[in-house]
Amino acid sequence: MRVVTYLHRHSLGTEKRLGIMVSDSVILDPNFVFACDFEREGRFNARERANVHCPPSLHALLRTRENPREVLHEAWGLMLFLEKCGCFNMEDGTKYLIEMDKSIALTAPLDKIETYRDFFVHEKHVATGFKKRNEPIPPAWYELPVYYKGATAGFIGPDKDILWPSYTDVLDYELELGMVVGLDGKNIKAKDAHKHIFGFTILNDVSARDIQKKEMTVRLGPAKAKDFCSVIGPVIVTADEFDTTEPDLLMTAKINGKEWSRGRSGDAHFTWAQMIEHVSRDEWILAGDFFGSGTVGTGCGLELDQWIKPGDVIELEIEQIGKLINKVGHKSLY
Amino acid sequence: MRVVTYLHRHSLGTEKRLGIMVSDSVILDPNFVFACDFEREGRFNARERANVHCPPSLHALLRTRENPREVLHEAWGLMLFLEKCGCFNMEDGTKYLIEMDKSIALTAPLDKIETYRDFFVHEKHVATGFKKRNEPIPPAWYELPVYYKGATAGFIGPDKDILWPSYTDVLDYELELGMVVGLDGKNIKAKDAHKHIFGFTILNDVSARDIQKKEMTVRLGPAKAKDFCSVIGPVIVTADEFDTTEPDLLMTAKINGKEWSRGRSGDAHFTWAQMIEHVSRDEWILAGDFFGSGTVGTGCGLELDQWIKPGDVIELEIEQIGKLINKVGHKSLY
Repeated sequence: MRVVTYLHRHSLGTEKRLGIMVSDSVILDPNFVFACDFEREGRFNARERANVHCPPSLHALLRTRENPREVLHEAWGLMLFLEKCGCFNMEDGTKYLIEMDKSIALTAPLDKIETYRDFFVHEKHVATGFKKRNEPIPPAWYELPVYYKGATAGFIGPDKDILWPSYTDVLDYELELGMVVGLDGKNIKAKDAHKHIFGFTILNDVSARDIQKKEMTVRLGPAKAKDFCSVIGPVIVTADEFDTTEPDLLMTAKINGKEWSRGRSGDAHFTWAQMIEHVSRDEWILAGDFFGSGTVGTGCGLELDQWIKPGDVIELEIEQIGKLINKVGHKSLY
Repeated sequence: MRVVTYLHRHSLGTEKRLGIMVSDSVILDPNFVFACDFEREGRFNARERANVHCPPSLHALLRTRENPREVLHEAWGLMLFLEKCGCFNMEDGTKYLIEMDKSIALTAPLDKIETYRDFFVHEKHVATGFKKRNEPIPPAWYELPVYYKGATAGFIGPDKDILWPSYTDVLDYELELGMVVGLDGKNIKAKDAHKHIFGFTILNDVSARDIQKKEMTVRLGPAKAKDFCSVIGPVIVTADEFDTTEPDLLMTAKINGKEWSRGRSGDAHFTWAQMIEHVSRDEWILAGDFFGSGTVGTGCGLELDQWIKPGDVIELEIEQIGKLINKVGHKSLY
């Protein structure tokens, strides 16, 4: 399944809701399909029951239901059944199938992130970074899947302008595969790690390189170099859509239509299973946590000595997931 | 006010609730005092109203009320009033004043943290760290209040054993002043920063030094060196109890009753106002966020080349706040 969060702009404002892509132009609203079915079954409080069974927020679904993917598959099955019954809406007209007209837009598919950890598992990217400082890759990199934790309030989705903070002159994109955790756990062994993966999406870990350079000399962080804006989307493809929980996917970045980056997600020194095992040692990972793989080789301007500028269009593509497209904004005022 | 989260162990389990210390042995439950007053006023749904007016969780109070300190002051005023009226409990016997008998214990005063940022503002501590690597303090340290972000699921409160993770042989304490954010904001100027400070507490930023050394060679993090356990408490002293929002407090650490660390919170290169201004540039800080100052000079074993061991008792004391006491646990099994 291709899981999204969609915005519905109507005459009184905007609503944000969990959805599943049925095709490129139609979204299934799983909360509404359950409400529709509870009503058909004669329940008085159909919406209230639907809100508990399948909340209209992916974060809430992941945090409260034991097997969120099964709930979404059930929604899909109900859609097929109700269509056969000729039942397309609730009595008040609420429809569970939404045509993607001008009133509908996609936003960050995970609507709230518990903890965001961003790794550094692609050797080519790591090597370029250390080479720039005339240093070899430290031995610890080969031993541990090291990561930093990013702030979560700055996440945006597709088609929104990327914030260019007032305090940087050197903005960069980073092409990464992102993973959404679907189940809490502690001391998870690599062999059991797949149970904790809800699905995968595209991540643009937007970076302010001048301040990152300063922050990293102090050996803490990064923080202000990353936390202002991160982009995910357009869809989360659930893990059951891949043959394996370690999908090896072609990843490319185009700037204004011209290819800058090309790599493969499988070209990583650590697997997702190893990352989950490492993080969860003596520590909880939570449903609603988000992991980034780290930049794929050639996957940012820093590696290429090429730089994005305000107005540029960044198009990150990962096969089997889609394209995450954003325009670079103008420097914010302070 | 001295704000706490208390545990009530009763015959059916344990409940966790927001409290205010009235004395060393009595806690005011602000949610219950409002419920008691709504009932006295003849409201049918007194508890429901109280849960909205002053939720029994500090995190929920900070996230939902515009001026959480005022709500708690109002609770204090109601306590004085209801005592005068001779009204000490609800009709069902629920009391708003709780004697600290054996069924009551304090836990981490902030029951859920949105984002945890830990700074590095005490020059003496920073100097010792860089000296150990035969490096000078980098110029960026003097320019920016640099910080890392820690995980939030591992926070514990007073009197609980500190987790010694399976993967470390070198555990350390860090004596820090902690600050709780009480109001959301973005692009906050230093002169307005005090409005965003709810109060201060003691922080023990427990650290696994062997893995930290490895993680920091890669220049990301720290992560596994810190995230397994952080300790806060026993109380949050609200900012209005201090003459200034930059309190200069004596801080000491005793291990098994012997003083190891002594410093002052005021001996910092950056003020809380500067930290808030820096973090909030082009980025939200949220009510329920938690900031650590960074270790005060001499405030950890790494600086002193003295090391804690399982069974040791760590007593962190900050004047006007209190003592945060924890025993060091035995290495966890994996």
